[in-house]
Amino acid sequence: MPATDTVRIQLPDDRDYEIRIGSGLLGEARSWQGLPKAAAAVIVSNDKVAPLYAERLRERLLAVYARVDLVVLPDGEQHKDWASLNRICDHLLGQALDRKTVLFALGGGVIGDMTGFAAAIYMRGVPFVQVPTTLLAQVDSSVGGKTAINHPLGKNMLGAFYQPERVIADLDTLDSLPDRELRAGLAEVIKYGPIADAAFLDWIEGNLDALLARDKAALAHAVRRSCEIKADVVGQDEREQGLRAILNFGHTIGHAIEAGLGYGQWLHGEAVACGMVLAADLSQRMGLMPAGFTQRLRSLIERAGLPVQPPRLGAERYLSLMRVDKKAEAGGIRFVLIETLGRAGLHAVPDERIVETLAAHGAV
Amino acid sequence: MPATDTVRIQLPDDRDYEIRIGSGLLGEARSWQGLPKAAAAVIVSNDKVAPLYAERLRERLLAVYARVDLVVLPDGEQHKDWASLNRICDHLLGQALDRKTVLFALGGGVIGDMTGFAAAIYMRGVPFVQVPTTLLAQVDSSVGGKTAINHPLGKNMLGAFYQPERVIADLDTLDSLPDRELRAGLAEVIKYGPIADAAFLDWIEGNLDALLARDKAALAHAVRRSCEIKADVVGQDEREQGLRAILNFGHTIGHAIEAGLGYGQWLHGEAVACGMVLAADLSQRMGLMPAGFTQRLRSLIERAGLPVQPPRLGAERYLSLMRVDKKAEAGGIRFVLIETLGRAGLHAVPDERIVETLAAHGAV
Repeated sequence: MPATDTVRIQLPDDRDYEIRIGSGLLGEARSWQGLPKAAAAVIVSNDKVAPLYAERLRERLLAVYARVDLVVLPDGEQHKDWASLNRICDHLLGQALDRKTVLFALGGGVIGDMTGFAAAIYMRGVPFVQVPTTLLAQVDSSVGGKTAINHPLGKNMLGAFYQPERVIADLDTLDSLPDRELRAGLAEVIKYGPIADAAFLDWIEGNLDALLARDKAALAHAVRRSCEIKADVVGQDEREQGLRAILNFGHTIGHAIEAGLGYGQWLHGEAVACGMVLAADLSQRMGLMPAGFTQRLRSLIERAGLPVQPPRLGAERYLSLMRVDKKAEAGGIRFVLIETLGRAGLHAVPDERIVETLAAHGAV
Repeated sequence: MPATDTVRIQLPDDRDYEIRIGSGLLGEARSWQGLPKAAAAVIVSNDKVAPLYAERLRERLLAVYARVDLVVLPDGEQHKDWASLNRICDHLLGQALDRKTVLFALGGGVIGDMTGFAAAIYMRGVPFVQVPTTLLAQVDSSVGGKTAINHPLGKNMLGAFYQPERVIADLDTLDSLPDRELRAGLAEVIKYGPIADAAFLDWIEGNLDALLARDKAALAHAVRRSCEIKADVVGQDEREQGLRAILNFGHTIGHAIEAGLGYGQWLHGEAVACGMVLAADLSQRMGLMPAGFTQRLRSLIERAGLPVQPPRLGAERYLSLMRVDKKAEAGGIRFVLIETLGRAGLHAVPDERIVETLAAHGAV
């Protein structure tokens, strides 16, 4: 049996769960034992991932559940909407599946978010298990309990905080991941260095080639450490009242890039990567970080094959896009800035500084 | 200032809240003080209730919030759906209202359930306040944190457990309640006697005429005691794992009546009233309660102007409707039965007993 890393997520009210990280977990009986008992399980996946892994998962789950259904949704962020969510609910109700039914989210962040939200609201809550098949989902959606769908007027605007029973992160599923998506996932891995762990940033710099080559040991460490850091942050702030905001390093500008170009032009991780470069620059301009920091982060992101040059949307457009970001509350645009390597915080930044940064990176 | 009764609902994680019960509360400044601070409040109501009370509430709230919007939904259970829920979300997002926005549910159970669910999912949760204007909503939706919408395949199938910041039960709003709805609300009041408090059942029998005459002191006691009992039960079982099921006394048959006739033919309270008579009969047939109990409950329900004669749907139809009820899990149909006056429990009942009861009451 291959080695399995386990990260235990501590939550109040008996909601603790494990993230298991390793090769071959999908096919291991042990991965699916000890989950809540039920008459039926439902695998929710998309039309890209289901053909690769759904049958293997279904076979394993049939050892535990008398009945295992499969709901296949269209792939893509543009389908992260009420219509797709309702397809899950239609299936559950159409088959008269009861409130003990366990949902399995097999896919990337979109599937995880939608399945988790369906689990949160179906009969006011049924258990669910995350089986993330992208690097982004393994390091990001595995921890934190955020579930959501998009609304025509905004991303992730309707959702719930709802925790899974378990996360099975099978590193083998990353073999089928397109290169561009692997790199986008690395953006979120890189993020955990500057905000929380300077030594992890060093480690990523030293192991980037192995990560890009999909070396399993390197990936296992990256996923585990990312989950540990996120768990540590979220554990102190489950409902996103304060500290948890630091996980949005790079996201304020990243969201503006995604919205400004139209969602789907850049991958989320690509937008965040570029957003981190600009947020690093803001950290320097606000006097928090010494010269050289932006260049260091920029080099790493560039080596990872991620964009460092923001699209030229113009200063006004960037400012207006960032003002509607949900983190923009009364008192100006607040950014997650790096205060020292391994520590971040929320800072209100004057518009002039933002415009300087945008100009310095060719965004205006 | 008129007397105000307060029931304090104890919840973990700082989510305690108060139910305030009295005359004239809507127009009292004190009712709206000390709620979460926000730039905006949104009153959600329906086209029957809004013309009566929305402007008065809006005026009072403008003393606390710089901006107070009003969203008016079509009245009726048939509109407790995704389309109505989305009208609330469309308004919130269309006006770019942030995650601190406080929602106020002004209306009956349908408005309360939908507004609560919108509050639960908008940006993964914004605060909300219940302002129930029906007796049913005051005694039932005020406690328990259940929010939901209907799905074409089932009532309340999509929802969340989500607690309000406060409940303001203004007894004066009951003056505008149609007689039929007042009586339907009394069904849920009556319910609390046999399941939890024999003395309360005595009190209702002695004060039924005052309640039907909308005497404020009698209504205040009925609402307060109902909320206290429900709070006591829910407090031991917030997520409906066990004990809370006793609140569904009369509901298994009641839901079958509602679904069998088509929702909206009988009011929920009417169906529950009739369901309680049959569940009382089952309690006798199962040897739990002595002879006379069914007749006692039947008399009270009849005096309240509520139906005691179930529709003649036939035994097979009743059984199949009750089997799809979400409380029907593996092992047969389970009913909440009265074990002794003031105590109830879940009991699996053989089909033969159910058919006997249905036949004895002319339902087959």
